[in-house]
Amino acid sequence: MLISFIIIFFETIMDYKIESLKRHKQYKGKIEITSKFPEINTKDDLSIAYTPGVAAVSSLLASDPKEAYNYSIKSNTIAVVSDGSAVLGLGNIGPYGALPVMEGKALLFKQYGGVDAYPIVLNTQDVEEIIAIVTAIAPTFGGINLEDISAPRCFEVERRLIEKLGIPVFHDDQHGTAIVVLAALINSLKLVGKSKAKVKVVVCGAGAAGIAVTKLLHTYGMSDITLVDSQGIVSRSREDVNDEKRLMLEITNPDNRSGDLCEALNQADVFIGVSAPDILKPECIKTMADKPIIFAMANPVPEIMPDVAKKAGSYIVGTGRSDFPNQINNVLAFPGLFRGLLDNRIQIVTDKIKISVAEVLAGYLPDDQLNTECILPSVLDKKVSMAIAQRLKTV
Amino acid sequence: MLISFIIIFFETIMDYKIESLKRHKQYKGKIEITSKFPEINTKDDLSIAYTPGVAAVSSLLASDPKEAYNYSIKSNTIAVVSDGSAVLGLGNIGPYGALPVMEGKALLFKQYGGVDAYPIVLNTQDVEEIIAIVTAIAPTFGGINLEDISAPRCFEVERRLIEKLGIPVFHDDQHGTAIVVLAALINSLKLVGKSKAKVKVVVCGAGAAGIAVTKLLHTYGMSDITLVDSQGIVSRSREDVNDEKRLMLEITNPDNRSGDLCEALNQADVFIGVSAPDILKPECIKTMADKPIIFAMANPVPEIMPDVAKKAGSYIVGTGRSDFPNQINNVLAFPGLFRGLLDNRIQIVTDKIKISVAEVLAGYLPDDQLNTECILPSVLDKKVSMAIAQRLKTV
Repeated sequence: MLISFIIIFFETIMDYKIESLKRHKQYKGKIEITSKFPEINTKDDLSIAYTPGVAAVSSLLASDPKEAYNYSIKSNTIAVVSDGSAVLGLGNIGPYGALPVMEGKALLFKQYGGVDAYPIVLNTQDVEEIIAIVTAIAPTFGGINLEDISAPRCFEVERRLIEKLGIPVFHDDQHGTAIVVLAALINSLKLVGKSKAKVKVVVCGAGAAGIAVTKLLHTYGMSDITLVDSQGIVSRSREDVNDEKRLMLEITNPDNRSGDLCEALNQADVFIGVSAPDILKPECIKTMADKPIIFAMANPVPEIMPDVAKKAGSYIVGTGRSDFPNQINNVLAFPGLFRGLLDNRIQIVTDKIKISVAEVLAGYLPDDQLNTECILPSVLDKKVSMAIAQRLKTV
Repeated sequence: MLISFIIIFFETIMDYKIESLKRHKQYKGKIEITSKFPEINTKDDLSIAYTPGVAAVSSLLASDPKEAYNYSIKSNTIAVVSDGSAVLGLGNIGPYGALPVMEGKALLFKQYGGVDAYPIVLNTQDVEEIIAIVTAIAPTFGGINLEDISAPRCFEVERRLIEKLGIPVFHDDQHGTAIVVLAALINSLKLVGKSKAKVKVVVCGAGAAGIAVTKLLHTYGMSDITLVDSQGIVSRSREDVNDEKRLMLEITNPDNRSGDLCEALNQADVFIGVSAPDILKPECIKTMADKPIIFAMANPVPEIMPDVAKKAGSYIVGTGRSDFPNQINNVLAFPGLFRGLLDNRIQIVTDKIKISVAEVLAGYLPDDQLNTECILPSVLDKKVSMAIAQRLKTV
């Protein structure tokens, strides 16, 4: 029965893939440029949109670049930048492989948040070059969404661009994921009746998403977090961890435990997987505390299939996928977040902002709709973005 | 009377400027991103446009980047790239000053040629950095329109990008101008009954446009061209000329004459101005050969006002402006050229292509409409682009 389910599951993905190829070929990509100005029909139209009239706008912006927010596309425009080094579940497939994903993101930004986002895929994976390029092209943009850049390079790229640019820079794989995970966890804790201060959390995967999830949950007030990578628990006794994971030791693993994922899960309340397919075994769930919460978000194949996790005793199961209940997907956050950043000219995405967005997401569902099969709003509800943007007026 | 004319002229420009500021503020720039895919309403829509379906498209493009032309926006997308070093008549005003012009260009590309063009303005004017940046961001684009980059830097930027990229790279200030000038000259020579082989041409201005005009007219078969810069005739005896001007000595000034603009014009048939306002004196026109042809294209104030030029004996007068007859403007060429380049996957804009485009433009007007007040199609005739694109099928 499990096998036939898995076959149906892969057939569904295959259908999406075939349909996706067909539709991308039919439309030749997903986005286009259109005019906000009236159609040019007269010489006056041309003189106003272009020369000689535009010279007045150019002179104004040259003397006061801030006016770009009032007279150019800047105030509603962001770049979706990727070097193609960590695309979906496909890994380092380069800029051409990244392009359809970035176009997709641009489409979602517009349809969900009214944000004009443009895909910029880079033919380099050198950290210094990426920083120099994004800095150089920044004048057109009111914000930068970094996407699918592998860890640990992504941390330095983001940190230095935030320092340099004066416009919001946001690596969605890190913080978008952290925000939706926190939202899902806030609501799940309500359902199991546990408090954030006491809950034991295991974060499985110590790449971009895992590190960011860990940081944000800790900032939110969860003090017992164990981070696990492919070699097991990230502990002080290990010498094979990079700088970013080492930093995480300051806020994780308070008892300096060692061991594998299953040992980490012993008596834990929450499993958060941002790692690899099929690595969570049912028997490990059985060792967890009462009412286990399982977020298995590896894409497209999760760390454990939801029905298997349920059978092993999970109380709440979420994944990143749209064909199971409890889809924990960044699209709930990034369009509304950037809508709010742009509308309020916010320059830095602080932890306070991230937590506020998570709280809006969690609070969006009325209490009577919240249940173990419904811990987050639907990814199809485009009004979620507006609620997030609204909240950022007062952060 | 002349003074009152000039006042009205500047008042007209002022009206355009006021209206342009107003409209840019009202619409917050001129272009936006819209979706070519159907609206996302269901989980299937999301799965096809984004994950998991898009993974198939990404895998395909990663394994065969050429498929980006079939499955992404690349086949209809170009970048309009500027460093803001030579914007309109405004000079080196930087990336923010350049942005409204590049947006304008993007708007014209779409409305006239159906091309999706995106404005990329650069916060650097270093030649090596510009080349590295454009190379790195190239995967998204099927072509690069360089714009408002000052000479002589523009020559190296363009040459090296053409060598590196494998997609068409075209500096419009150079070649777009050269194409429309050649088209205007082909028709003007018909009207005055002179042959290209014998005509004496003076090109005034030795920046990006002047150099490119000189090269293209020479390639087209005009052998008596004199290039003049702000210091006078570019001659072998001068030591103050840059490399690019020195190269022009191989194809200009066969008699190695020296002197000022007025001396250059003695017995000349054609004046082509891509230089500065008001520098052509009526008395110099009087020394020219029979039926002088005057293209005074400095913008917004030409080298000589058309009525003054006429009074001094000019037979045909063209300018870059829309409020006089004979507007010689690049918008006649660039949308159709890029439409044709993209449709036919042309990688290099050869001289043959430039001349073909000029011939299409010149031939677009039926003989019975061609006269001294009408040497080119209207800049409002959007079908011109399609005629150019059509021609490029067989170049």
